[in-house]
Parts: sequence; C-alpha cells; structure tokens
Amino acid sequence: MNLMIESRLRELVQEYGNTTVQDAMSYSLLSGGKRVRPRLLLSLLADYGIDLDHGLNQACALEMVHTYSLVHDDLPAMDNDDFRRFKPTNHKVYGEGMAILAGDGLLTAAFTTLAKADTVSAMVQMKTVEILARNAGAHGMILGQELDIVDNIDSVEALIQCYEMKTGCLFAAALEMAAVIAGKDDLQDTARTLGLKLGVAFQYQDDILEVTKTSDEIGKSHLSDGEREKSTIVTLLGLKRAQNATEGLFKEIKVLLDRLDLNGTELQKLIEEMIARDL
Amino acid sequence: MNLMIESRLRELVQEYGNTTVQDAMSYSLLSGGKRVRPRLLLSLLADYGIDLDHGLNQACALEMVHTYSLVHDDLPAMDNDDFRRFKPTNHKVYGEGMAILAGDGLLTAAFTTLAKADTVSAMVQMKTVEILARNAGAHGMILGQELDIVDNIDSVEALIQCYEMKTGCLFAAALEMAAVIAGKDDLQDTARTLGLKLGVAFQYQDDILEVTKTSDEIGKSHLSDGEREKSTIVTLLGLKRAQNATEGLFKEIKVLLDRLDLNGTELQKLIEEMIARDL
Repeated sequence: MNLMIESRLRELVQEYGNTTVQDAMSYSLLSGGKRVRPRLLLSLLADYGIDLDHGLNQACALEMVHTYSLVHDDLPAMDNDDFRRFKPTNHKVYGEGMAILAGDGLLTAAFTTLAKADTVSAMVQMKTVEILARNAGAHGMILGQELDIVDNIDSVEALIQCYEMKTGCLFAAALEMAAVIAGKDDLQDTARTLGLKLGVAFQYQDDILEVTKTSDEIGKSHLSDGEREKSTIVTLLGLKRAQNATEGLFKEIKVLLDRLDLNGTELQKLIEEMIARDL
Repeated sequence: MNLMIESRLRELVQEYGNTTVQDAMSYSLLSGGKRVRPRLLLSLLADYGIDLDHGLNQACALEMVHTYSLVHDDLPAMDNDDFRRFKPTNHKVYGEGMAILAGDGLLTAAFTTLAKADTVSAMVQMKTVEILARNAGAHGMILGQELDIVDNIDSVEALIQCYEMKTGCLFAAALEMAAVIAGKDDLQDTARTLGLKLGVAFQYQDDILEVTKTSDEIGKSHLSDGEREKSTIVTLLGLKRAQNATEGLFKEIKVLLDRLDLNGTELQKLIEEMIARDL
C-alpha cells in the first residue's frame, strides 16, 4: 500500500514541472513520512471490498494537505522548527517566501488531485471536496493551528478540542472520504467520530513519546513543544494518567471500529500498528 | 452586482464563527476592493442570460483565493507591505502566524464555497473545482508569485509570463467558470485567453499608475515594487511604449470579446471600466 502511495504522490507532484516551487513541494511531499492519512483511507476502502484505485488520488490529496500544514507550521512565525524527519525544514532549504508558496501549492494541488479522481461519480467527487475543505479549513485543522498558536490551553477539554481539530480532522477526512467512496454514507458520521478520537490518541502518544524518547530518535530539533512550555496531556495529567487516557481512547476506538460494518481487518491492523508505535 | 457580492462574502465568512482566524479572514476579505474577479464571472454569466445566483458562490470563491494571495504576498518573507487599501496589512494587525493561517483558511474556504454551489450539477461543480485549482495552483497564480519573488525578469516575454500567471490566471478562472456554468464549454478556451490578456493589461496599468500617481492615491506604502527595483513594463520599455503596449492588449481583448458569442454588454462594460480606471 505504501509503495502505491509513494509512487502516485511522485507522479502527481512531478506534473508541476521544473520550477523552484515544484522542487520545494516535492522536497516536503516526498520526504518519507508514515503516510498515516492515505493509509487510513485506503484501509477502510479495502475493508469495504472497494478497488483501491478508486481512492488513491483522494488518499494523495490528504497527504498533500497534511504536508502543506507541516511546511507552514514549521515556519519561524509559527513553530519555528529547523528539522523534520531528520532533514532541514522546507524554509531552511528554500527560504521562507518559497516555503509559504510551496505550502499554498500543495494545498491547491490537493483539490486538483480530487478533480482528477474521476473513476468515482462527480457527485462522490464533490462530496470528497466538501469533506476535505471542511476538515482542513477554519472549522477544522486551521482552527486547531490557531488553538495551538494562541497557547492558553489550561484544561484537558481545551487540549482535546485542539487535538481533534489539529490532527483528528484529517484522520476524520480520510475515513469520511472512504465511507462516501464506498457508498456507505450512513456510516460517515461514525467514521468521522473514529477519526477524531484517533487523532487525539495519536497526539497523546506524541506527547508521551516526547518525554520518554530523546530528540535524536524522534528526528525533531530538541523537544520543541516542551521547551516552549506548551501544554500537553503529560503536563496536564502527568505521565501515568496520560498513558491511561490514551489507552482509554484506544478502547473507545475499537468500539467504533466494530460499528463500521467491515468485511476485512486492514483498518484494524493499521490502528493496532498506530497503537504499538514507539516513534 | 457589488452589493450582492459583498453581502454573500460576508455571509460565507461569518460561518466560521467567533475565532481569531475568522476575524483575520474577515478583516482582509471584507476590506473593500474592486471585486474585479467576481464581477468578471457574473458579467459573463449575465451576458449568457444565466441567473446570477448560479454563479454567486463561485464568484465569492474567486475573491477568497484572490484575498488569500494578497495576505500571503504582503508577508515580510514575500513583499513585506505594511499597508493595503489604506489599511494595515493582515500580519500588521494579527501577526505573521495568524496571517499565514488566515490565508490558508481563505484558500480552503474557497473550495468549501464551491461545494456549496449546488444549484449547478455536480459535474459542473467539479469543473469549477478543476478550473479554480488549476489557475490558482503551482501551474498558475503560485507560479506567478514564484516568478515575482525570484525577480530575474529581464525581458518583456518573461514579464508577460509572470503577469499572465500572477494576475491573468484568476481572471481566466472567472471567465472559464462562467463559460462552463453557462454550458458553453466550447468557448472555455477563448474565455481563458481573454482572461490571461486582461490580466497582463491590468498589471501593465498598475505599473504605469505606479509612476504616474503618488502612493497616497494608490493606498500602498511607498511605490514598493519600484523601490526594490523590480522589473515592470515601464522599466523595460519606458512609459510611452508601455502605454502603447497596454492599448494594443485592450484591442486584442476586444477581438476576443466578439468571439464569445454574447447576448449582452455587461462584460464589455466592465472591461471598459477597467480600461478607464486611473487607480
């Protein structure tokens, strides 16, 4: 599945020709990464017995949106990170102006990619546009970034909202898209709820790993969130209770998984892999 | 027509609720402006006898994309402008991080807005998504921004390419969208060509106004492009020949206008207004 995703991402970004902004887009889009969002989409599609070709472009569109958010998030005016995935961040290589454009280019390319996905009906295509824009926009991921920047998070409730928006929304988009591509519109809400909870659990794990691993292992520059004294689930609850909260979320996620009426175990296996990750 | 556009823009952006990023999005989106791109779309639609309600959301989506491009373009890492339309630029009011997010939010909201435009068929909606993403993306407006940043423009040909991408592509998107909404797919290419040429002519006029008007009248901070010694049609050709080139373009535009098979004069009147503008 990963090979399929990598290969299609490469094809899609190469279409932008031989320009600096294309170079900057490729640099971040093709720099590895776990491809969690595309795999969530394709795994759910597989579990509904749908040919993965009907979701590959949509899966790549999600990864483009995720990548653009990282490029902009790393900028000096935002998190000001110098390294990501063991490589210099986009603006460190191409400069800030070009990194802003590369992010803009990736976000826009995501919608071009949805427009290419014409093995599904135009009606389904429009649903995927709505799902992606809603979850990525100022009601979704961008609101999460705002909550993250403003940084007055002083309760678990506020942190959950931030994580649902910042990370959960794109997970939700992946699972919602798979549901509508499979014609399971009645399960779109359940898929969405699962995605939001998975996002929170994923961020909790990040927070936990940040205190239990060294920065060399994570590939980011020095524990940046902690240094700037951002609230995390660990600073709010302590390590032990944070671990318990994460386990509680994974139990809720398994209950939701059962409600999705699956014919396979791809999504379950991916979620178990996400639970077991230590990086 | 302008009242209709202002009112719908306000409704659309208010849907993002009471957050700082929504505030920052509104600040730039509702700060006046000539609304040229939405009016191009609606004028062509009117000339085809189509109810303007079938293009109002699409027109607003275009203005959102235009506004996001201004917000990002004004950032210190790009053009570093402190004023736009006689008001402090977005990052001067909300900070750089929030201005980046507000731009991202407006770009994303444009696609949410196209997804709302369901008085046209899903097939036509998807065509508008393709048109907007193609013209706004790394083959279009974003490439124009790159050419503008890189700033090694030393020929009229290179300048035309930059202006076609930077400004022409969104004008083209407006006219292409109107053509497909009106079911005139056979005229989409002509509409596109007209939009590209109009964009170049519009930028030539900007260049000319920059040397013939004071900055107080234009509302920007001190003749910023000229100060940084960017190439313009005036620096490349001199004022007189630049004015002739602009007039030549307007003649070509009128020829293309005749080929669009119009039943009205709205688009012609708008273009004449654009030709006559002195600000």
